[in-house]
Amino acid sequence: MPPPIALTIAGSDPSGGAGLQADLKTFHRFGCYGMSAVTLITAQNTQGVSRVDLLDPTVVLAQLEAVWCDLPPAAVKTGAIGSAALIEAVAGFLATRRGCPLIVDPVMISKHGHRLLPEDAVRALTEHLLPLASVVTPNWHEAGALTGGLVHNHADARRAAYALRATGAAAVLVKGGAGHDGLSADLLVDAEGELELPALRLASRATHGTGCTFAAALTAHLALGQPLREAAIRAKAFVHHAIATAPGLGGGVGPVNHWA
Amino acid sequence: MPPPIALTIAGSDPSGGAGLQADLKTFHRFGCYGMSAVTLITAQNTQGVSRVDLLDPTVVLAQLEAVWCDLPPAAVKTGAIGSAALIEAVAGFLATRRGCPLIVDPVMISKHGHRLLPEDAVRALTEHLLPLASVVTPNWHEAGALTGGLVHNHADARRAAYALRATGAAAVLVKGGAGHDGLSADLLVDAEGELELPALRLASRATHGTGCTFAAALTAHLALGQPLREAAIRAKAFVHHAIATAPGLGGGVGPVNHWA
Repeated sequence: MPPPIALTIAGSDPSGGAGLQADLKTFHRFGCYGMSAVTLITAQNTQGVSRVDLLDPTVVLAQLEAVWCDLPPAAVKTGAIGSAALIEAVAGFLATRRGCPLIVDPVMISKHGHRLLPEDAVRALTEHLLPLASVVTPNWHEAGALTGGLVHNHADARRAAYALRATGAAAVLVKGGAGHDGLSADLLVDAEGELELPALRLASRATHGTGCTFAAALTAHLALGQPLREAAIRAKAFVHHAIATAPGLGGGVGPVNHWA
Repeated sequence: MPPPIALTIAGSDPSGGAGLQADLKTFHRFGCYGMSAVTLITAQNTQGVSRVDLLDPTVVLAQLEAVWCDLPPAAVKTGAIGSAALIEAVAGFLATRRGCPLIVDPVMISKHGHRLLPEDAVRALTEHLLPLASVVTPNWHEAGALTGGLVHNHADARRAAYALRATGAAAVLVKGGAGHDGLSADLLVDAEGELELPALRLASRATHGTGCTFAAALTAHLALGQPLREAAIRAKAFVHHAIATAPGLGGGVGPVNHWA
């Protein structure tokens, strides 16, 4: 039996902790054959982002067309896409090729606070890409930005999750948020209702690429045929362990342990 | 102990079998933390290359500068670089940052026959990059092109290896070549002399990315601190096993098994 194929459509992080590099490492970790269509090139390390260059939409489409016809994926993940034009191109491509799970990680801002998605592209995301999503994985900040509000607490997160499901996304998983009790809790809202995914909050600086890594692990488990709720629980446990056993690389917000 | 860091400076293969994707999978397989600076974007699958877009040299340099100062590599590999201007930029950067092994895989043509390096860039490679190399890993065709001749047999390969060492490269490993006896033999020429690395030649169509994967495995073993000859023997055994256990993906020249 060949391994299931997982495709990421994402930006490049040369430092290897986030972006398509983190996705490929995570797919590999879970036995999925990884493919990656590049959308944008960042220059970054654990301390900051120094440059972002978007690729032309025709370059992204050429990559997608090349891989899709020859190596059809079992699951697809999107990460940083970078502009309204790129989002519309990717969504237009995926709209005609349904049939496998689509995990949309609405990357907007890097861990260092560098904006990776201009504000006008947020509407393109909600209008064109979210309606195709099997699951969307915003953090509190992204959930707020996508719903035109702010997410300060778990009640806000819950409201945002339902608002995002109303765009047409089949499920929404709002990540994290620091509780005063030392716990963090993700909230999954799907057709069956709600599922809370609590975890101990780790006091770690090694959180570079945790969003990408979580969504990639979710994608891998869906590519392997697991149901969404089981895939989410496994992906969360993996990222927790990956942070807890981070290799301690770099002088800033370090990468997690993708072998975890 | 954190894992050693391995950096590839290479093109992107969205289908995941060659280029920086194959490098990252191979680094990961051997316990090295993988980083990748992108030089060019291909659209390709197992059947052919449909498009190649070179990045601007300043984009490549920005990636290298970002990662080098924060996450210094234990070994560096170069793959497809794509133009004389890009080669000069990369070589100029690496010339001021010696001190770790540099593996130069002089990628010129994809397995489907698609040219990835214009002829005028070949001189840039021999003049600027090869003198910095700890080891250069051409196949017969590349060894010929780099030395202004043709390599048809093991005697030609041996002559080309010595000619390439004369550029300043510390070692040259000329790969493969089909013998009539069902054997293939790589030839390593280093400061100690010659080492032949014979292997059974596999009748397999799954050879997409074998050059990248071999050089990446060599890079990983050097990053882990192994001597060149031991690293070369291990890398060759890995690629042999990776071809023999290829996952059978795609309709053309399929990828190897990077978990091998």
